[in-house]
Amino acid sequence: MKHHRTDGVADLAAKMFDDIRLLSSDKAGVSRPAFSDKESETLDYLATRARAEGLHVYEDAGKNLWFSLPEHIDAEKFTVIGSHVDSVPMGGNYDGLAGVIAGLMVLIEARQGRRRPGRAVKVLAMRGEESAWFGACYIGSKMLTGSLPEGEFGAAHKGDGRPLSAHLEALGVDTAPVRARQPICDLSRIDAYLELHIEQGPLLVERDIPAAVVTGIRGNFRYRDIHCIGQAGHSGAVPRAYRHDPVLAFAELMHRLDDTWQHLLNTGEDLVLTSGVVGTDPSRHAIARIPDEIAFSLDIRSQDAETLDQMRAYLKTEMADIARTRGVEFERGSEVAVAPALMDPDLVEGLKKAMERVTGTVFAMASGGGHDAAVFAQAGVPAGMVFVRNRNGSHNPDEAMEIADFMVGVDILSTYMEAAS
Amino acid sequence: MKHHRTDGVADLAAKMFDDIRLLSSDKAGVSRPAFSDKESETLDYLATRARAEGLHVYEDAGKNLWFSLPEHIDAEKFTVIGSHVDSVPMGGNYDGLAGVIAGLMVLIEARQGRRRPGRAVKVLAMRGEESAWFGACYIGSKMLTGSLPEGEFGAAHKGDGRPLSAHLEALGVDTAPVRARQPICDLSRIDAYLELHIEQGPLLVERDIPAAVVTGIRGNFRYRDIHCIGQAGHSGAVPRAYRHDPVLAFAELMHRLDDTWQHLLNTGEDLVLTSGVVGTDPSRHAIARIPDEIAFSLDIRSQDAETLDQMRAYLKTEMADIARTRGVEFERGSEVAVAPALMDPDLVEGLKKAMERVTGTVFAMASGGGHDAAVFAQAGVPAGMVFVRNRNGSHNPDEAMEIADFMVGVDILSTYMEAAS
Repeated sequence: MKHHRTDGVADLAAKMFDDIRLLSSDKAGVSRPAFSDKESETLDYLATRARAEGLHVYEDAGKNLWFSLPEHIDAEKFTVIGSHVDSVPMGGNYDGLAGVIAGLMVLIEARQGRRRPGRAVKVLAMRGEESAWFGACYIGSKMLTGSLPEGEFGAAHKGDGRPLSAHLEALGVDTAPVRARQPICDLSRIDAYLELHIEQGPLLVERDIPAAVVTGIRGNFRYRDIHCIGQAGHSGAVPRAYRHDPVLAFAELMHRLDDTWQHLLNTGEDLVLTSGVVGTDPSRHAIARIPDEIAFSLDIRSQDAETLDQMRAYLKTEMADIARTRGVEFERGSEVAVAPALMDPDLVEGLKKAMERVTGTVFAMASGGGHDAAVFAQAGVPAGMVFVRNRNGSHNPDEAMEIADFMVGVDILSTYMEAAS
Repeated sequence: MKHHRTDGVADLAAKMFDDIRLLSSDKAGVSRPAFSDKESETLDYLATRARAEGLHVYEDAGKNLWFSLPEHIDAEKFTVIGSHVDSVPMGGNYDGLAGVIAGLMVLIEARQGRRRPGRAVKVLAMRGEESAWFGACYIGSKMLTGSLPEGEFGAAHKGDGRPLSAHLEALGVDTAPVRARQPICDLSRIDAYLELHIEQGPLLVERDIPAAVVTGIRGNFRYRDIHCIGQAGHSGAVPRAYRHDPVLAFAELMHRLDDTWQHLLNTGEDLVLTSGVVGTDPSRHAIARIPDEIAFSLDIRSQDAETLDQMRAYLKTEMADIARTRGVEFERGSEVAVAPALMDPDLVEGLKKAMERVTGTVFAMASGGGHDAAVFAQAGVPAGMVFVRNRNGSHNPDEAMEIADFMVGVDILSTYMEAAS
């Protein structure tokens, strides 16, 4: 186990997190809206710090910032360590930002001569990843890879209602080539895309491991607003045999999905499922009334596209079965699906080796949340990710990452880059 | 099978229903608020009609109306055929009113010499049965039997916020003896209390039977607002083993209760259960978030107090078990319970015999909703009830009772009274 880490670099990272927290603080947590002045201020701060450390900084046509060692400015091929600087409203300081600062720490340690990357590496600080502002997510990386759908230019800002295109133009982005799906960066020059992110679940805290290598990003299919429709009736006067109770039908469906979930885990498959929004209709429901309807959402995720297909088919079969036996109807509404993104196997192997050198152990896991890494992977760029232990999930002011764990993540990236050739 | 029914009496009943529907019509259905002028108008209308048919009418200290044949005015002992004239807001025309008009039809047929009751019978048109107006239910019959709890005098009207006592005094009711729990009527003179009511469930429609004898009124226990508390998390990032998902806990609880319900029915027990109000918190829930909490109501009813006790114990055991295995908590909140009221076995037998004579068949069932009959039964008066087939439940403008079915119910009451001695 080698230790290149210096307290000086950890202190600098801590100071950068603190300064940015301060400049973007909101009533609770931080707010760094996508394509906003606050996002620009954050990038300006990072540029100033990077220049002070002797790094080269430049802005691309999407107003993202790129950082590199002076010797890598004109590298024909390079690895990108990227992440985003925007946050959700009243979010935590680490989601997104940790990945950018981690990249800068890799460059700064190299610049200081403590680490020696085996190949050229650039750091990319992106804008507009969070869907909280325009509904659409990964806007920055979609623009970089030339994959922003035409429809998303018209997406209205949740605050001022103006379309994304107006916000981009106000920043000085020329939207014509982006609309024409021209990638902002030359993807053929990027040999790999790496991203460090805080873990958004409890696994690393529960298992007492500071970091992990990500094997893939779960895809999902979602139904925003499923309706199970039964028949209203007096809670005391309708015998069981004559009921068409949508709440009991919903309970049976969730119970069956839960059983199948456990079964699939037992056979080694990757799956999570959630019904996050559930409710009878407040304008009609009553304690002494069998409700005529219950509405609920369903979010089913897996790293494996086949498992998702299997679950989609299972869901339909079970709904049909319950509908028949209970005399209810399920109206699923429209489905939104995102394909899983596997991380590049060579990168996963390389990062695992680096993790072993840094921590003496290896831990690999799936990412439940989506990340810019998935956009690069889908654009054909080999992608890899490192997770850092974090308490209380993400997208809330209680995100809690220790700087020591963060530096383990930085160390894994630096160690990987040293071994790269 | 004897047929005493005349079209004339059926036509009169239909006209009375129509006239009262008109005088109490609302934007939808009818509204006859408890202890209101509209309720008084309804009673005035009934008094006028009854007097025109040669019946004696008088008002008691609770401003309820009593009707009798001239020859029974001073009867020392008598049977009461009673029901209420108030309705829920924008309710149906038959809930309550059908029982009063049925009693009047029994008297009118006797007055016309078509039927000859074997003992004295009086008809009682009560006020204030529906809980929709003051929260409390059966106010009229509780005052009649001297069982109105002190606290209910202060119950605020849902519309004007004034207490029940103020509404009673505005009507001219002297509340002092009622507060002292003096029964308004001499219960020792009432040998039986009979009530006709529309069925509030679908059983008679489904089985194609015009009427039924009620064996008892289900008691219940209810929890208005149970909270199942788990732990919030990212829908994609928290593996199953680390979840404390309150929605899946709720689903498992309802599924187990549903299984047990079927099991108890298989062993011949009487039970219905309903979760009518269910919801995650709209201020916090999201499709991609494991909710931290779900709130739900529970209404469990049976004709058998032992079954209710059994279910209460089972509910607690199952909640504790699910709480332990899923790492969630159930906060039940306060329980509201109403004891079951068995109908008098001799009256049930007598009404069954009458039903057989009228329809050639016998059908007996439990009442799921509560009725004034339960209050009389609890005050020690032998009580019996007849249900009449009705579509679409009660407490809504779609209540649909056929006059022909209603007349079968009237016929059962008249036939019973003829056989009584």
